[in-house]
Amino acid sequence: MARLVGSGFGGDIWPVNPRRETVMGIPAYPTLGALPGAPDHVAVAVPSGGVVGCLEDAHNAGAHVATVFSGGYAELGTAAGGSAQTGIVDVVRRTGLRVIGPNCNGIINVPAGFALTTTATLDWPCPPGRMAVVSQSGGLGQVNVMWNAHRVGVGVSHQISSGNDADLGALDFARYLVSLPDTGAVALVLESIRSGWEFAALAVEAAERGVPLLLLKIGRSEAGARAALSHTGAVTGSDDVVDAACQEFGVIRVRDADELVDAAQLFSLRQPIRGRRLGGVSVSGGNNALLSDLAGESGFSFPALSARTSERLSPLLPDYAQIGNPLDATTAGINDPDLVVKSLSAVANDPVVDVVVSILTHVPDTIIETLREITESVDRPHVALWVGGALEKQLEPENLVRSGIPTFSRPSQLLRALESAISHHEFLIGHDRERLRAFARPQGTLGDNQRPDLALQGNLFGEFASIGLPLPAWRMAGTQEEATAAAATMGYPVALKICSPSAPHKTDFGLVRLGLADEDETGAAFDELVSAFTRSWPGAAFEVLVQRMAEPGLELLLGGRCDPVFGPVVVVGMGGVLAEVFNDRVIRLAPVSARVAEVMLRELRANQVLDGVRGASPSDVEAAAQAISDFSRWLFSLRDVLEEVDINPLIVHQKGMGVSVVDGLVTLKSQT
Amino acid sequence: MARLVGSGFGGDIWPVNPRRETVMGIPAYPTLGALPGAPDHVAVAVPSGGVVGCLEDAHNAGAHVATVFSGGYAELGTAAGGSAQTGIVDVVRRTGLRVIGPNCNGIINVPAGFALTTTATLDWPCPPGRMAVVSQSGGLGQVNVMWNAHRVGVGVSHQISSGNDADLGALDFARYLVSLPDTGAVALVLESIRSGWEFAALAVEAAERGVPLLLLKIGRSEAGARAALSHTGAVTGSDDVVDAACQEFGVIRVRDADELVDAAQLFSLRQPIRGRRLGGVSVSGGNNALLSDLAGESGFSFPALSARTSERLSPLLPDYAQIGNPLDATTAGINDPDLVVKSLSAVANDPVVDVVVSILTHVPDTIIETLREITESVDRPHVALWVGGALEKQLEPENLVRSGIPTFSRPSQLLRALESAISHHEFLIGHDRERLRAFARPQGTLGDNQRPDLALQGNLFGEFASIGLPLPAWRMAGTQEEATAAAATMGYPVALKICSPSAPHKTDFGLVRLGLADEDETGAAFDELVSAFTRSWPGAAFEVLVQRMAEPGLELLLGGRCDPVFGPVVVVGMGGVLAEVFNDRVIRLAPVSARVAEVMLRELRANQVLDGVRGASPSDVEAAAQAISDFSRWLFSLRDVLEEVDINPLIVHQKGMGVSVVDGLVTLKSQT
Repeated sequence: MARLVGSGFGGDIWPVNPRRETVMGIPAYPTLGALPGAPDHVAVAVPSGGVVGCLEDAHNAGAHVATVFSGGYAELGTAAGGSAQTGIVDVVRRTGLRVIGPNCNGIINVPAGFALTTTATLDWPCPPGRMAVVSQSGGLGQVNVMWNAHRVGVGVSHQISSGNDADLGALDFARYLVSLPDTGAVALVLESIRSGWEFAALAVEAAERGVPLLLLKIGRSEAGARAALSHTGAVTGSDDVVDAACQEFGVIRVRDADELVDAAQLFSLRQPIRGRRLGGVSVSGGNNALLSDLAGESGFSFPALSARTSERLSPLLPDYAQIGNPLDATTAGINDPDLVVKSLSAVANDPVVDVVVSILTHVPDTIIETLREITESVDRPHVALWVGGALEKQLEPENLVRSGIPTFSRPSQLLRALESAISHHEFLIGHDRERLRAFARPQGTLGDNQRPDLALQGNLFGEFASIGLPLPAWRMAGTQEEATAAAATMGYPVALKICSPSAPHKTDFGLVRLGLADEDETGAAFDELVSAFTRSWPGAAFEVLVQRMAEPGLELLLGGRCDPVFGPVVVVGMGGVLAEVFNDRVIRLAPVSARVAEVMLRELRANQVLDGVRGASPSDVEAAAQAISDFSRWLFSLRDVLEEVDINPLIVHQKGMGVSVVDGLVTLKSQT
Repeated sequence: MARLVGSGFGGDIWPVNPRRETVMGIPAYPTLGALPGAPDHVAVAVPSGGVVGCLEDAHNAGAHVATVFSGGYAELGTAAGGSAQTGIVDVVRRTGLRVIGPNCNGIINVPAGFALTTTATLDWPCPPGRMAVVSQSGGLGQVNVMWNAHRVGVGVSHQISSGNDADLGALDFARYLVSLPDTGAVALVLESIRSGWEFAALAVEAAERGVPLLLLKIGRSEAGARAALSHTGAVTGSDDVVDAACQEFGVIRVRDADELVDAAQLFSLRQPIRGRRLGGVSVSGGNNALLSDLAGESGFSFPALSARTSERLSPLLPDYAQIGNPLDATTAGINDPDLVVKSLSAVANDPVVDVVVSILTHVPDTIIETLREITESVDRPHVALWVGGALEKQLEPENLVRSGIPTFSRPSQLLRALESAISHHEFLIGHDRERLRAFARPQGTLGDNQRPDLALQGNLFGEFASIGLPLPAWRMAGTQEEATAAAATMGYPVALKICSPSAPHKTDFGLVRLGLADEDETGAAFDELVSAFTRSWPGAAFEVLVQRMAEPGLELLLGGRCDPVFGPVVVVGMGGVLAEVFNDRVIRLAPVSARVAEVMLRELRANQVLDGVRGASPSDVEAAAQAISDFSRWLFSLRDVLEEVDINPLIVHQKGMGVSVVDGLVTLKSQT
């Protein structure tokens, strides 16, 4: 009540309290039924046992929306909590009333002066900003993001704490906020993403309007997920898939709440940040060197200035100064601020510069006029890195921010924010709109009657062949005679492998023999493998795979799995133990075209290996990309039955010689 | 003058100016010779052409120290600048006068109220802190570190801007500061480290006194080094060697200036930070989850609380709250701060907790009393993560810091600072004092007469054998007949390799044939190699190496090089293209013992490969460590002649089977 009154809300407020005549001096009503009219929005702050009754009363009183602040639901992680939450959902289904929460701390609409919330971090009246904040967690959204944004001069338009998302969820609010004309960016703080396709649908709308979506996903780690689960009852999906989805959907993913606020600063600029070439001026050579270090590590550069710029700078600077980028205006610049402005203007107009950076240490308070002048006079984005204070101590960073000059106090903040802005710009101009739209639809399922015959959860060679993945000749053998006969038919050398659901990771147990050159070696290997296996797994079922040795080549890993939120994903990595150790993997939502598959291969950190290093021949990248694409389509078509598939290795031969698959492992979803 | 007077310096100030009667109302003297007595310290701020004369006058007037603010020296990167700096050094040599600078902005002694500096970022009187700051760059040291430290409540004792370090250098000042009883930590901001052994000597003294050294090294990247060079004329060494030296010497290396200030906060605590197990309480489940995520990624944990602690917590919390770590005190904690204190005290006294973290969002201003109480009542370090503001708006983070409660506004800041403090604690209790002291002595050189006979800069097999590195049988051959005869003597299979200074990277050019099984294959391979080589390098000198094939094993890279600052270093890495791509390397200053060599192997990210993965046998790590140690001693003994050595691969056989070296490349220093 106090927050709502304090925010200056201009509509009627009708307190409901059976035991009081007035609340905060406003006449109270004993029940919702006694209200003088239909309420627009009912705020429910009663113990959880009374919530369902309140919601029914709210519906009967003519309300369309209710916010439930009360806790005691799915966040408890108990059966009782879950069933209490189901009780709320039942009211929604039965009555059509829409519910925000439960276990939330409400909504704030800054331009409208409306704060229906349990916590207070803003003073009213409050200058509105252009960032909208949607958070399942109340504290992160209200304090870490909204309050900090307000403090640094960015400001917010809305802050919505959606809590357990029992009915209306974070993605619903975000879609609404994206549709508002004044929204500059939407910051999402989520513990769970309720639905992959709804997330994509939000991204489609944001891309069409050019509104950036920024995501802080918490509960990424197992420990964090545990904390998140007990907080809003959210089940978090697999984090690397969230990364893949964000990349696909153009959502800017950040690691901490302050990065949301930093990034939001740049989305209020007139021009987008188009590139990674910086031009800077300061009076501190040390700050120049430090920023150069950190910029270089983050993929940014301070390119050499053009000859024309050097000519313009030369007469401005003292003899002992050197012309570089970032430019060190030396102590001459401390004594003569005009020199700094003119230098910066020369640097800013150099065509090699994408972003102009004023690097400030201790500055006179009048710097704000100078910086405004620069912002207005140059035709590219201008930002400030201000590591110190103001000499007359009145000017604060938020004054600059409110004047339209994005201002950062640390190089790492600036660089991260620039990267966010550039990646969004690149997404807007380069993304595949059709592909994005395809993810924004609920995907149908196969239905049980289409469940294919994937009987053996071991080596699915027939299945792989049907995708078009080339397999060397193979046959299953039960006896030594069958094995040697098969080998003779397919030609030596061959490999023998024990196939058994009891030992899916054959190599780890020494259940593989490679490069068998003739009948004697094959026969002996068969006996060894069988006795090794039966020693360790007495009585377990197995077969022996006889396989023609594939030609050697570059070994990749090709895998897929079904994410509970985003559906099937395809994973590509370098093969071998080292690549596993370094976790060199690229993930995309399935299916992928051959073109996207090739991009995936190029995103591998070790991608240079594809082209042949140290005398090796270039690999058949085209064939590999096609195989990945074919595999991803198969994976997509069987998404209802496949849990996980691993093809390891996918051997990529020399350019023009295609690929081979020698082994794989499939896990089916448990039938329900 | 204004700064010096403003700092409240109590001694005599004698301005020297031939054209003025007084300066700032203080009587001026026309020359240094006209002073009424011998000055303690002369500040020189004249154009560079007059500096040498001033220094001579200062010496003649009886001064022992002068600070030269003037620029125009080595930082220009010109011959004239270099020679001007030599002029200053000559005065020092001739007269014994000690010089600070040139191109510096002076020194500040906060407890003494003495500021001999060109820039002003502190208001006097200024509360002194316990962090001493030494910086070659003026701006970084004064603004990014000193001013910020003061602003966040940490405070500094001294700030010294040493500029070009022509005579007295940053390391000299740091040694002095380490020796002062009130110094809590020394922050170094360096563009270059003048001498490796002086750096080690500083570290020895710091370790003996338990004073942490924190280093921000700028000019790490090529671009940054260019900016640093033009700033103070510093030549920066190889950055990975600086990392290795810092690790060896217990110096905490940071990436940005604010990290110096953050880390300094923790070094004022009564107890050291002993471990990575955190215990936290907040009223924001979202902040708990976020901090858990980030902590887990940084190697920290929030361990499950003991049963006893859970029993203590249970009656404090409402029914719907769950007991976890970090503990979510829920909105009940917002309404009842006493609940938070009691909860935190229960968590803080749990033996599984190393560091107690108060996670604060928006808090009443009285929280400072509560936090002080916690700090006093628990027997382990207590820090605050404060992401929001104070309800009554009087309390600021610096108030908490000044009250002895380290306070951070972002999880990443807190975690990085904790990591710094823990690594220093681990260094103090675990480092090898003798080894550290050995680096703190100037190392003698061999002298030319001991220059060994390393004639062929190709395959130095004799040399490697002399270190004790086991080599398979080998011989150089000039003709096909010599090659096959050699092969017959050593036994098949053999390898042939072209050895020529023209083609040091043989494999890249197809100049290697492996696994030749008999005389025919060997003869044919000889002809192929020779014609391939002579086609590409007609007329170039070469020999053909015939070598018995080594038994296979795990391939490592073993290398060494001579760093201009720190001397010889040994490099160990996983062999193969992928390891190169992922840059899996460990560097140490040479020589290393077998024990340290084994630690190096264990520090490889792919170290698990040493123990055998996917069915492979464990490797002979002991023999590899011994070989690395032997190699490092050889490298150290030949540090005057060797520029770079690469042994690739060092083959590590199965446990008990030793190692083999099959190839190597040596580059000698160019003789001067």
